[in-house]
Amino acid sequence: MYRRKALVAIADGLGDRPVEELGGLTPLQKARTPNLDRVAREGGCGIMDLLAPGVPVGTDMGHLLLFGGNGADYPGRGPVEARGINMDVADGDVLFRCNFATVDKNGVVKDRRAGRINGGTKDLAQALDGLGLGDGVRSRFAPATEHRGVLILRGPGLGGAVTDTDPKVTGKPVLAAQATDGSPEAARTAEKLNLFLRKSAALLAEHPVNAQRAAQGELPANALLTRGAGRFRGMAQQPELLGFSGCCVAGEATVLGMARLLGYETVTDPAFSANPATDYARKAAAALEALSRHDLVFVHFKATDLAGHDNQPWEKVKAIEMFDAMVGLLLAQLPPKTCLALASDHSTPCEVGEHSGEPVPVAILGPGIRRDEVERFDEIACGRGCLSRIRGRDFIMGIFDYMGVSKKRGS
Amino acid sequence: MYRRKALVAIADGLGDRPVEELGGLTPLQKARTPNLDRVAREGGCGIMDLLAPGVPVGTDMGHLLLFGGNGADYPGRGPVEARGINMDVADGDVLFRCNFATVDKNGVVKDRRAGRINGGTKDLAQALDGLGLGDGVRSRFAPATEHRGVLILRGPGLGGAVTDTDPKVTGKPVLAAQATDGSPEAARTAEKLNLFLRKSAALLAEHPVNAQRAAQGELPANALLTRGAGRFRGMAQQPELLGFSGCCVAGEATVLGMARLLGYETVTDPAFSANPATDYARKAAAALEALSRHDLVFVHFKATDLAGHDNQPWEKVKAIEMFDAMVGLLLAQLPPKTCLALASDHSTPCEVGEHSGEPVPVAILGPGIRRDEVERFDEIACGRGCLSRIRGRDFIMGIFDYMGVSKKRGS
Repeated sequence: MYRRKALVAIADGLGDRPVEELGGLTPLQKARTPNLDRVAREGGCGIMDLLAPGVPVGTDMGHLLLFGGNGADYPGRGPVEARGINMDVADGDVLFRCNFATVDKNGVVKDRRAGRINGGTKDLAQALDGLGLGDGVRSRFAPATEHRGVLILRGPGLGGAVTDTDPKVTGKPVLAAQATDGSPEAARTAEKLNLFLRKSAALLAEHPVNAQRAAQGELPANALLTRGAGRFRGMAQQPELLGFSGCCVAGEATVLGMARLLGYETVTDPAFSANPATDYARKAAAALEALSRHDLVFVHFKATDLAGHDNQPWEKVKAIEMFDAMVGLLLAQLPPKTCLALASDHSTPCEVGEHSGEPVPVAILGPGIRRDEVERFDEIACGRGCLSRIRGRDFIMGIFDYMGVSKKRGS
Repeated sequence: MYRRKALVAIADGLGDRPVEELGGLTPLQKARTPNLDRVAREGGCGIMDLLAPGVPVGTDMGHLLLFGGNGADYPGRGPVEARGINMDVADGDVLFRCNFATVDKNGVVKDRRAGRINGGTKDLAQALDGLGLGDGVRSRFAPATEHRGVLILRGPGLGGAVTDTDPKVTGKPVLAAQATDGSPEAARTAEKLNLFLRKSAALLAEHPVNAQRAAQGELPANALLTRGAGRFRGMAQQPELLGFSGCCVAGEATVLGMARLLGYETVTDPAFSANPATDYARKAAAALEALSRHDLVFVHFKATDLAGHDNQPWEKVKAIEMFDAMVGLLLAQLPPKTCLALASDHSTPCEVGEHSGEPVPVAILGPGIRRDEVERFDEIACGRGCLSRIRGRDFIMGIFDYMGVSKKRGS
């Protein structure tokens, strides 16, 4: 039976525009990228619109598509954040993004971030996790970065159409959650959320972490503000559906969360940071190790995107050269019967400082992969390649097909 | 905050096929087009299928797509004609295209165009406008070109599924309108339309314009024939939805009507004709003036399409060179931080004399626009450009993205 493996190296926010201070070249054209160019020269190239031409996507949506999901199944931020911090989420869960905050005795918000609390939230969160709220509904609560957390209400008959309790400004009281669509599910969720917030206020008020903060003259984390309620529908698990084993190697919680939602295993490490000192050699080693256990491995590289957001074309050139070095390590040890693909989740042009809707270059190298005459890996050259201009999902379908796991339509 | 402006020059029916008498070149390849070629050489190029490859579209559908609308929202001819003559249309209106006609005393059609009546229709129309038809239903009526007019029935609970009253041939009686879908809305519309036609026949019979026509031995415009009933649903207003200000500069009522339906302002002038004597310099000046007030301006050029319909390749070459001259005027005064795009609404190959489904060339030039190695603006060369082959809506989404008004999907 025909089966192949695939390794996909993703440079976040890679696509860009001609930059005057780079002599009218894009950062990718300007960078010295012998390894990326080798993939282009010895493989097949194209340009890719993640969702559609001219439509900018977030890192979460971009990776949803690269991982084989449908854009229409985008689950919202809550589930991605929850899975990013390794909470489990189940079909029917209602998720909320939360802040720990400080309120006065009248429930008026004094500080929306509890003095930018940066320690003890794990203990606080533990107190709020697993509260019974009646009718079979329970809370799940986990801390995220700094003052942030994720709340899940889990139980029968819950709906996502409820208002934020976060007033978004200081000096106003915490709002009571209300149903917005008149459904009994939303009404039940609003009721359970309000009950949870009352219970959690009582638990936070007497929590030792807050006693200690008070003793140190710090604002107590004595309230939760919730926003972005959303009911989670289970997502199609690509690896399971197509019968392969997939893994994502990344440092960023958003990418890890999306990978987990779609049924991929994940490998992460505190050394996988987005800053220029990131240990890309360790990431490459982790990707190759994962490839020994999995059929499909994504390895994600972040620094390219940050340089675009920071309007720093020369920083982006450097980040791209680091990505190139990482790809060099992957190429050097690529196992036989394996393709290596280069991709990105969106463009982040330095002159915009935000994601844009321009296509990103892609290239695939491997035994049996069609080759074209493209010599360089960049936004323009790859457009003349044999993959032409394709969508994100079409790109990954091509990888699935190469792997031999696609389903034939018709007979 | 990043924002840019865009100017899109549209050559109607530009795309063509190799023509033997042009030495196997397309009219666009044959024409001397230094300005169009400059946009191609210094910008990014592609070929565009308005709706889909191989699907010919009308000027109205082509412009619906170029203006950012969805093909599925095509409203039918009635609303386009109504807005083309500056009638307002509202959600729920039922529109009819009409002819002034001549009937005998038995209601049998003698002339479907009332002797090609070409004067006095404004006065006739005024008599038919604003008639009360009961149940809160009123008529709106406005004259269009020559013997044509547009009728709107406006009021609660009307439907569009009614038959034509135009028998399409002389010697047959005017038909009574009937509902075609069994709905109470269509039944009410048929009833109100038949009432309107009776009332209007009485008003037309005694109208001074017809008395004068009779005195001059001309056929009276003593009846209306209606066809193409359609209920109008309000259309998505792209400029409002995305938060920009848009304008269309054109002479043709169809293009102006579609622009207005989609929420664009319009600028027109009797000098903006489709014939070879059209004052393209005045049109260019109007477009540049509009660009000082708007974020996005379309400027439409018609003569290219007419030459295609007339099977006149050499005429098409001349029309293209005139379009090139207009684009030269635009290029010479293009404001900074503005892109100039070249587009078309469909191909009109001279050998077909009708619209065809072949793609049209596109090119975009401006600061930050990706550049490729295409040197000439034509149907073939542009296909090797960095935009590759795209759909009409994708093309305009790319412009919106460049302008910085696109909405990001995901976060």
